[in-house]
Amino acid sequence: MSDDKVYISYNYVHKLCQRSAGEIKKFKPDLMVAIGGGGFIPARILRTFLKEPGAKNIPIQAIGLSLYEESVSTSNEENANDEGGLPDAEEAGMEVIRTQWLDFNTLETHALNLIGKNILIVDEVDDTRTTLHYAVSELSKDIKVQAEKLGRSNEVTRFFIFVLHNKDKPKRAKLPEDIMNGRYLAAETVSDIWIAYPWEATDIDLQTKYAVSQGNI
Amino acid sequence: MSDDKVYISYNYVHKLCQRSAGEIKKFKPDLMVAIGGGGFIPARILRTFLKEPGAKNIPIQAIGLSLYEESVSTSNEENANDEGGLPDAEEAGMEVIRTQWLDFNTLETHALNLIGKNILIVDEVDDTRTTLHYAVSELSKDIKVQAEKLGRSNEVTRFFIFVLHNKDKPKRAKLPEDIMNGRYLAAETVSDIWIAYPWEATDIDLQTKYAVSQGNI
Repeated sequence: MSDDKVYISYNYVHKLCQRSAGEIKKFKPDLMVAIGGGGFIPARILRTFLKEPGAKNIPIQAIGLSLYEESVSTSNEENANDEGGLPDAEEAGMEVIRTQWLDFNTLETHALNLIGKNILIVDEVDDTRTTLHYAVSELSKDIKVQAEKLGRSNEVTRFFIFVLHNKDKPKRAKLPEDIMNGRYLAAETVSDIWIAYPWEATDIDLQTKYAVSQGNI
Repeated sequence: MSDDKVYISYNYVHKLCQRSAGEIKKFKPDLMVAIGGGGFIPARILRTFLKEPGAKNIPIQAIGLSLYEESVSTSNEENANDEGGLPDAEEAGMEVIRTQWLDFNTLETHALNLIGKNILIVDEVDDTRTTLHYAVSELSKDIKVQAEKLGRSNEVTRFFIFVLHNKDKPKRAKLPEDIMNGRYLAAETVSDIWIAYPWEATDIDLQTKYAVSQGNI
């Protein structure tokens, strides 16, 4: 067990999603955009707790973003570990690379285009905010283009960001004021420490033991 | 605790992915296609165990499939619970509905098109096989069209299917022989019983307790 890491159990992740659902429901999300791979697990869990009785589940759209495509180790940068981020991924290359984007064809087929919708963006960790900034700005651009094409520019599309953890550190990118003021939720804010998520554990029993010893159960 | 349900803990799901990784690695997957939402969690966990030292993580592409769009409860059909499946979703409507498909633009941008690739399809449960059949046949169609367009029809694209659980029951759809003979892996085969996955639990501590009492830890 490393003292400079915070160990998280799956059940704790589950509870962080469960505890956050009430606040997120107030936003009345129409769909989720899960930033993969880190956002996949919280997004799927969160959906269980966002479901209203008798209503459909909230659709999850997945996007894949990586800070540094060719990197190989597992930095704790947002999603850098997903494509494999160098510890210095930030320095090595700030470029956000898309590995998957929205499938607008299908979205439109199901009248599920994003114009005027409440969109819940889900990721595991807000480290430098770079990936979240990219997601919001690129999604906003695409929606603006769509809306102009369809003559629906008057409709307001809103974003709500949910992350399991926000790292209390200087950020390299900003999010819009209106999101930071009331539509941003981190289940927990932690210092700038390595967060060991259970899905990266090679020994999940040991990981759980460490998490329990740190109270993250 | 209900005797007609099998309770699964997160750690057990993690171990099922870990145990299966060796077999899946022999297939040398180029990318994963996670069938959302049920496939998101096993896909993200599996990627940890498929990663080769010094190599990049295997990219995950997400697709969203639902057997019955308007349904509202939580049947255990593949992904029906994701969009909310009626207990009789199968009877109500066998149509598979796409909520998200591949983003071929981005795939092509990254020279990650699927022609000639080893594609690992991941889902939580193979119940009636309907969703898996749809995924394989539709992906194959798209790849065939792409390949003809690019004059690469000679390249062989292979699929490998991984599910956490296969239900031992009559299937409503078939998968190609070559997949069933060596490129299909279910971490566990169970009887036609309700599988209670942890991400659907409203009390994860109780769920884990039940799972432990059933040995699914």
